[in-house]
Amino acid sequence: MRAFFDPRQLLHGPTAELHNGGFAPYQETPDRAESILHAIGPTEMPADQGEAPILAVHSSEYVEFLKSAHRLWRAAGREGDPIPYAWPVVGRRPLRLARIDALLGRFSFDATTPIAEGTWDAVYWNAQTAIAAADAVLGGERAAFALCRPPGHHAGADYLGGYCHLNVAAIAAQRARDAGVERVAILDIDYHHGNGTQDIFWERGDVFYTSVHADPATDYPFFWGHADETGGGPGEGATLNLPLPQGTGLSDFRAAQMQAIEAIRSFNPGLLVVSFGADTFEGDPISHFKLSTGDYRMLAGDIADAGLPTVIVQEGGYATAALGTNVRSFLSGF
Amino acid sequence: MRAFFDPRQLLHGPTAELHNGGFAPYQETPDRAESILHAIGPTEMPADQGEAPILAVHSSEYVEFLKSAHRLWRAAGREGDPIPYAWPVVGRRPLRLARIDALLGRFSFDATTPIAEGTWDAVYWNAQTAIAAADAVLGGERAAFALCRPPGHHAGADYLGGYCHLNVAAIAAQRARDAGVERVAILDIDYHHGNGTQDIFWERGDVFYTSVHADPATDYPFFWGHADETGGGPGEGATLNLPLPQGTGLSDFRAAQMQAIEAIRSFNPGLLVVSFGADTFEGDPISHFKLSTGDYRMLAGDIADAGLPTVIVQEGGYATAALGTNVRSFLSGF
Repeated sequence: MRAFFDPRQLLHGPTAELHNGGFAPYQETPDRAESILHAIGPTEMPADQGEAPILAVHSSEYVEFLKSAHRLWRAAGREGDPIPYAWPVVGRRPLRLARIDALLGRFSFDATTPIAEGTWDAVYWNAQTAIAAADAVLGGERAAFALCRPPGHHAGADYLGGYCHLNVAAIAAQRARDAGVERVAILDIDYHHGNGTQDIFWERGDVFYTSVHADPATDYPFFWGHADETGGGPGEGATLNLPLPQGTGLSDFRAAQMQAIEAIRSFNPGLLVVSFGADTFEGDPISHFKLSTGDYRMLAGDIADAGLPTVIVQEGGYATAALGTNVRSFLSGF
Repeated sequence: MRAFFDPRQLLHGPTAELHNGGFAPYQETPDRAESILHAIGPTEMPADQGEAPILAVHSSEYVEFLKSAHRLWRAAGREGDPIPYAWPVVGRRPLRLARIDALLGRFSFDATTPIAEGTWDAVYWNAQTAIAAADAVLGGERAAFALCRPPGHHAGADYLGGYCHLNVAAIAAQRARDAGVERVAILDIDYHHGNGTQDIFWERGDVFYTSVHADPATDYPFFWGHADETGGGPGEGATLNLPLPQGTGLSDFRAAQMQAIEAIRSFNPGLLVVSFGADTFEGDPISHFKLSTGDYRMLAGDIADAGLPTVIVQEGGYATAALGTNVRSFLSGF
């Protein structure tokens, strides 16, 4: 399978995140990508398709914010990396805002996702990697892998959060739509619900989003991914959430993924994007599912059986040493 | 003027707040109340009117959260005081949530407002203090002062933030409504916009909210207090925001307050609640207006000239040593 990666994706390196009431070392490290590279072997560099495919998903105000946030933070005399501390939880809307802290809150939903000096370059090339994998599949490949890092599925059209800045799965899906694929499906099997992807396509009937994830009553992102969220307007029915309790192992996970795949078959898409997180692994330090390395090959086989052209985008997975072999196991199922 | 205070209000004592990208010492200290007590002399203890006047403003789910948050945090094995790290910025709604971090985000809008062990007791008696001052005015006093601490105007019906947990100004205003006063006005002259008060009465035509404050483009709470926010539904036109630039001194502040008072006169209320913050003081460590101690007496005189029964509720003010004399100056204007 063709796989894509750009070393500039490693330029994003925050040192700390706010978690459980205090600052902790940042879990989403460049080492994650190194672990995957070591396991899967050579990758291709993506071409540079520019900002247009990014702006097909994200607002231009948000992109400008991502580019400028670290500079504005420094200009305000601040140390460390920009993180927000207040959010527009009521009546979120476009506003004239001058202070960096205001912009940070306007364009985010959590305090776990700093914008480091190299973040824009990293996430720009992260997006190009996803676009390259999509283009490979649009060009005839049965499947392609985008070694995305940082992940993307928590990022909305105009917000960051959950280690995510640009939504690589959404960018890949929209790339396929813009290339003429009439219906695209996204299967999200990261441990966490992909709230950003859901929000981006919430009112869209042409992109089906389905996710198997930890129950948001107990797990991040808490406020999205509940079973009663099914899309709005023209997108009503084009969102399917399948939350599972902490402690879930292969059998229940596989059954839920089968339900998601059946729903995708019914939607009859021309292309599938898989948001693959290996944080469902039994050894993951921040998650609570019980999948083993070998399980990923089986789960990938079920997806491959759907017979759809498939773009696989890397999302989470924080057991860094095992991450590469888990990804390799998954890719081997195709 | 009768003044009210309960020493249990001092039981709220977080150690740190998230501000400008890191943890800083908590600015809203019990010493603030001590400074005011020292300057204004004896105060009366409030009677205990129970939870009903609090629940007339705040949701029961939110009150239960405030009572239990610190215990749930400890039960989750956490150190320090509970603070949130993720927020429902899109589609905020009632949800079944089990984890303390989820509840913290559901019922807040920032990361600056921990819930310490004594917080519920402190804010309960803080509310009783505001209710006692309202009852004194409803009983015939021309004006009464509630030495509230912590402040209240950033707290909404179901959210905390900005050092505020229960909205004492809103509770006092609603107390007057429930006692039969047909129209109540709230004049908020804290440096920061009172987003919680605005939200609580946003769709209410019977409570007029007007605020003179620092432009939210540059100052907290950023996402509320813009001049185009005028109320919704039956409350359309019953909200008036008068943002001013950093550096504002007496002349411009007084003119804006006059505009607010004129609007209050037109509304023709039976009672006025003043949210008084002394963080408009030139020596305030976190604010940027240029009022001097003597200015407060003049501003209070302008308010007194409106001739309305007036409940004065203490909000912010973080130049602790000068806070007492600034409050005394203000109260002397009545």
